[in-house]
Parts: sequence; structure tokens; C-alpha cells
Amino acid sequence: MEHPDERHERGLKTLQHLSGEAEPMVVTSLADIAPDLGRFIAEFAYGDVLTRPELDLRDRELVTIGALAALGNAAPQLRFHINGALNAGCTRAEVIEALIQIAVYAGFPAAINAVEAAREVFAARDSTP
Amino acid sequence: MEHPDERHERGLKTLQHLSGEAEPMVVTSLADIAPDLGRFIAEFAYGDVLTRPELDLRDRELVTIGALAALGNAAPQLRFHINGALNAGCTRAEVIEALIQIAVYAGFPAAINAVEAAREVFAARDSTP
Amino acid sequence: MEHPDERHERGLKTLQHLSGEAEPMVVTSLADIAPDLGRFIAEFAYGDVLTRPELDLRDRELVTIGALAALGNAAPQLRFHINGALNAGCTRAEVIEALIQIAVYAGFPAAINAVEAAREVFAARDSTP
Amino acid sequence: MEHPDERHERGLKTLQHLSGEAEPMVVTSLADIAPDLGRFIAEFAYGDVLTRPELDLRDRELVTIGALAALGNAAPQLRFHINGALNAGCTRAEVIEALIQIAVYAGFPAAINAVEAAREVFAARDSTP
Amino acid sequence: MEHPDERHERGLKTLQHLSGEAEPMVVTSLADIAPDLGRFIAEFAYGDVLTRPELDLRDRELVTIGALAALGNAAPQLRFHINGALNAGCTRAEVIEALIQIAVYAGFPAAINAVEAAREVFAARDSTP
Amino acid sequence: MEHPDERHERGLKTLQHLSGEAEPMVVTSLADIAPDLGRFIAEFAYGDVLTRPELDLRDRELVTIGALAALGNAAPQLRFHINGALNAGCTRAEVIEALIQIAVYAGFPAAINAVEAAREVFAARDSTP
Repeated sequence: MEHPDERHERGLKTLQHLSGEAEPMVVTSLADIAPDLGRFIAEFAYGDVLTRPELDLRDRELVTIGALAALGNAAPQLRFHINGALNAGCTRAEVIEALIQIAVYAGFPAAINAVEAAREVFAARDSTP
Repeated sequence: MEHPDERHERGLKTLQHLSGEAEPMVVTSLADIAPDLGRFIAEFAYGDVLTRPELDLRDRELVTIGALAALGNAAPQLRFHINGALNAGCTRAEVIEALIQIAVYAGFPAAINAVEAAREVFAARDSTP
Repeated sequence: MEHPDERHERGLKTLQHLSGEAEPMVVTSLADIAPDLGRFIAEFAYGDVLTRPELDLRDRELVTIGALAALGNAAPQLRFHINGALNAGCTRAEVIEALIQIAVYAGFPAAINAVEAAREVFAARDSTP
Repeated sequence: MEHPDERHERGLKTLQHLSGEAEPMVVTSLADIAPDLGRFIAEFAYGDVLTRPELDLRDRELVTIGALAALGNAAPQLRFHINGALNAGCTRAEVIEALIQIAVYAGFPAAINAVEAAREVFAARDSTP
Repeated sequence: MEHPDERHERGLKTLQHLSGEAEPMVVTSLADIAPDLGRFIAEFAYGDVLTRPELDLRDRELVTIGALAALGNAAPQLRFHINGALNAGCTRAEVIEALIQIAVYAGFPAAINAVEAAREVFAARDSTP
Repeated sequence: MEHPDERHERGLKTLQHLSGEAEPMVVTSLADIAPDLGRFIAEFAYGDVLTRPELDLRDRELVTIGALAALGNAAPQLRFHINGALNAGCTRAEVIEALIQIAVYAGFPAAINAVEAAREVFAARDSTP
């Protein structure tokens, strides 16, 4: 078994890669109110799960986009993972296509709202130098 | 614009490929009670959406597995698409890995129940000659 | 303001009409474990809400079928209200049509599972002398 | 089988009627980012499903309002269909009544938030000349 | 059986205690559009259910926070009950802890969004003289 | 930072206490198909989160019961935590009361189905010597 610090570092590295942020806001924004939740995101969600070699990061982001678009109740996280999918190698067309498909499995409202989330992510990326 | 029959045929072919059934039960089982719902599945869900070239079928099944495992309220369809993911090129280890990841985005109960669905699909495949 | 007994009686009468049961099982089955929940169903759900004159019972059952089919996590209650819709004046074709429409707003899996619930209700009605 | 253009036209006509918009925004707003999703809404959701004669449009809107209010995760679409229900013949009192009933089947928070959506729709209609 | 006025008064008293408002806004804000929904909240939700002696109010607020944080689709009500939990005797640390736990049962997005709701509630309390 | 083995042991101990099982089935039943998911349950869900001192176990089980009863899509886990709540110090009357309250926040169907889950748990406990 590995040292816990390794989980944290490994998780943070993937978070940095997915978010494109040196200090991922999903962790830092929790520092004042629920720092351990931020730590669990780095250590468990990313360090334990998302860094496992059994599935590559692009595949994982497709799974996550499917989950969050279908649930339809976590817009900030859907935007985070639409951006993450792009950083993990998906094209914009592939992301849109995945979200259109949500109409089949969770209905048109979920698909439309997910596409609107993608529109915001694409715009933010276009306006970043 | 293409002839409607082409949508139906194209959809049916993908349904046959995903399900491994010559006459996909998801359509035939609706024939007596809601035949047009079965027709919409073939024509729209498969003929219009799942056969679009923008995303390959293995990617699509990862999105769908993510959606259905997270929703946690459609066990028969989750089993169908776990089987479909395997027929579209995923390994069993990849499917399990995708479902473990659901614990992060929709909680452990959703992940555990999805893994149990996978167990049933794997067993059914093992018992089929 | 009316006497509480009137809420109970009025609710029970609508429950009897919707369920076709002289002693509605949804209330009696709770008698040993959560009798007050059964009482709230009669007094509040039916006595206070479903008997209000602003919407007739057939319209109300369409709303409820839409809600339960979309949520997809309450099969016994969906069956109860599919039966209730029929007792409130919907035809079987209208019920099936309402459930097919759920594919648009909550996805095909929700619609398919709701149609399967309708199949059970129709069969139970056909086998009752 | 009919020509695909007829599905599109028929769907658009119902969309125009429900929304009261000559160029329904739900379709046009997707034109730049996911035009085929807009096309599927017109062709499939409206052209194939909502225009079927088995259920009239007022009944359909009651089903949809029930579904979206219960899911509680698609406010823009709930507002669209509250407006649609009014355009399909429901009175405001009937819409409010349907949403109050959601408290019974999906809880008070869902009902309260749906009534707030209705308030916005009513205000928008009142402020339109 | 008691007089209906007693249900209303008893419910209102608990609503006042939980909200810290002399005229609870959840009721008054519905007065113009759905007054009976406001009345049902006072009479049924609070007068009938939340005032029952079988569970104390602090326990009840933990149950409700768990429910609303997991559903993830009712932010105004989650904020109301985070505030209510504090007024019922929970510390801020206990509330945050309950919300972190939601990550296990409904996923990290639900937990993060619930913690953000708590942040707003804490800030509002801090800025009230 | 502590050694990872301590997380596992600490988690397992709480799992044993909650479940009343020497070898908690929720972990062992995953051993053949997704052993790491079982490990994450012991290490993260229980070792990291549920054993934190900020909230006692009885409070935690009330939160979890609220979450799972409201979601309404994880019956095995709801039964596990109804049993866990009893093992953590809740009385049966308190559990039933918490589930009745779910009617207010997630609707009567969710409350009724949760009470039925409680009935199964109570019966299983009564039939165990």
C-alpha cells in the first residue's frame, strides 16, 4: 500500500490536467468551508478512482458527462467535465454529440440544458487568450 | 432528405449489433401494447441518433452507461447497454471501471447497483453457448 | 373550516373510486406499520388535494401519470395511477399515448418501463371477473 | 410512410401553436451549436409524438407539466410547457392546481418551485402587449 | 380529533421557529398565486407532520437536509432547511459534516452544491444584525 | 497522515457495527466482480467519512435514510441503512417517523416505498434469533 500523500499528489495532477488550472478551484473554493471535502476530491475521487489505468481519461469523461447530463441537477460540475472532456481529448463535435444522445436516455430537456452548458464552456474557452 | 424506411433499417441494424439479437426484443416486446414506441426506438433513437458518425458506438455506450447508472431507475435498460457496451468493444474490466466511477458522481448505492446489473449480464453471457 | 372527519371521508371516497377497492389497500396495508401515513393519504392527499374542484379527476390522473412515469422510481404507485386513470375515464389508448410521450421528456427507458407497468395493469383488469 | 418534410412541418406548426412564436426559440437557439437537436425536436418530439391524434394537446401538456414539475431539474422547459398548457386551453387556475398536486407525488419543494415557474410565465404573459 | 385551526397554528409556530421569521415567507410568498399551497404547508407539512413528537426537530432537519441535498434540485428549500437545522440546534460544523456525507450516498456534485448552499446561508446569518 | 491500513480497519469496524455482520456483505459480495469498489466502501465511505467525529452515527444514519428514501432508487441500500439506523440507536418508531416525513419533501410514493423497506427490515430482524 502506498503513502497517502501519493494519492493526493496523483489526484491533484489529474485535476490540474482536466481543469487546466494550476490550483484547481474545485478544491481551493472549499478551503474555507469544507476543506476535507476538497481533500476527498483530490485523494479519493481523483487519486483513487479517476487515475486508475483500467479506463483512459477521455473514456472516463464520456461516462461522467453522460451521468451529469442525465441527472440534470449539477450544472457547475457538468460544465467542469465538458471542459475536462475537451482537455482529455474529445472534440467539441464529440461532446455535442454525446449530449444530443442524452435526449434518448433522459429526455430532450436534459439534452437541451446540457447543450446550453456546453455553449457556456465553449464561449469561456474562446474568450481565454 | 432520406426515405423514412432507411432510418428504420439503419436503426434496426445497430440495434441488432448492440443486442446481439436478430429481432431485438426491445422492439418486439412492445409490438402488442405500444408498437409505435418500438418503431420510434428503431427509427429515432437508433436510426437518427445512435448511428450518427460523430461518435463511435463504443463511446456512445460509455455515455449511456454513465447516464443510466447515475439515474439508477432503469435496471433493464442498464443491463441492455452493459451488454451493448461489450458488443461495441468494451472489455468487462472497462465496464466495471466505468461503473465504479459512478460512485464519485452519483454515489456508492448507484455504483453498487450498477455493478450488480453487470454481474447479471456477465452471467447471462457466460451461460449462453 | 370543516370538521376533520369530512376530509377523511371525502378523501376515502375518491380513493375508492380511483382504486375500485372498497377498502383501499394503499391505506389498509399501512395500518400495522405506519397508520398515520395511511391517514395522511386519505385526509391530505385525497381529502385536501385530489378532491378540489379546480381540476377534474381525469386531468389529475394525467398529471400524476406524467410525474410518476418521469421519476421512474415508484412502480407500484405508477400502476395504481394507471389503473386510476382508467377508472377516471381515460381509455387504454390514451394512457399508452401519455406514456409514449414520456420518452420525449424523460427518455425512452422511462417510457418503456411505464408501458410495461401499463401492461401489468391491463392484464390484471382483464383477469378480474 | 410519409415524406420526412411533413414530419418537420407538422411538428413546427404545433411548436408554433404551443409557444406562440413564429420561429420557436427552442429550435432557433440551437441553430449555432446543435442544429440537429433542434431538428429532432421539430421532427420527432413534435412531428412524430405530440401531434398524434390519440391524445389532445391540452391533455398532453398536463402530462408534460406533471413530468417536468416532478423531475424539478428543467426550469426553462417547465416554463415553456406552462405557457404551452395555457396556449393549449388550460386556465391559469388549472395549471396552478396541477402544480399544487405535485406536492403529493414529488414533495412540497417540487410544487413550490413549479408554482414559482408559473408566476414567471404569468408575469411574462401579462407584460406582453 | 382536533379543530383544523389548531393544525394551522401549531404548524405556523414550528415554521416561525425554524425560519426565524414572524411571518414565514414560504407561506406569505404563495399568498397571491397559490394560497392553498401555503396553507397546506402550514397545516399539513408542519401542523400534521413536523410537529409530531416521535422525532425531535433537530433529527427531522437532518433527515430533510439529507433528502434535499441528495435530490439536488431544490436549492431554495435546501437553504431554508440548512438555516432551519441551525435554528433547531445543529452547529455549522454538524451541518457541513452532514453535507460532506452526501458525497457517499449521492455523489460529490450533490455534496459540493449543498456545501455552496450552506455557504450562502452562513453568510446571510453573519450579515444579519 | 495515517497509514492506509488504519482507514480500512476503522471503516470495517463501523461497517460491522452498522450491519451487525462480522464480514459485511456489502464488501464481500463485491469481491468477485469489483473488489476495489468494496475496498473504497471500507476505506473511503466508512474509514474516511462515516467515522469522522463531527457527527455521531445515529445522526449520520438519519441523514442517509433521508437521502436514500428521497432518491427512491436504491432499495437494498435503504434497507441496509434502516437496519443501520436501528443498530446506531434509533427506535423503530423514530425510523418510521423519519420515513413518513419524506412524504413532505419527496412525495407520498417515496414515503410509502420507504416504509415498505422498513417493514422488510423489521421482519428480518424479528425472524433472526
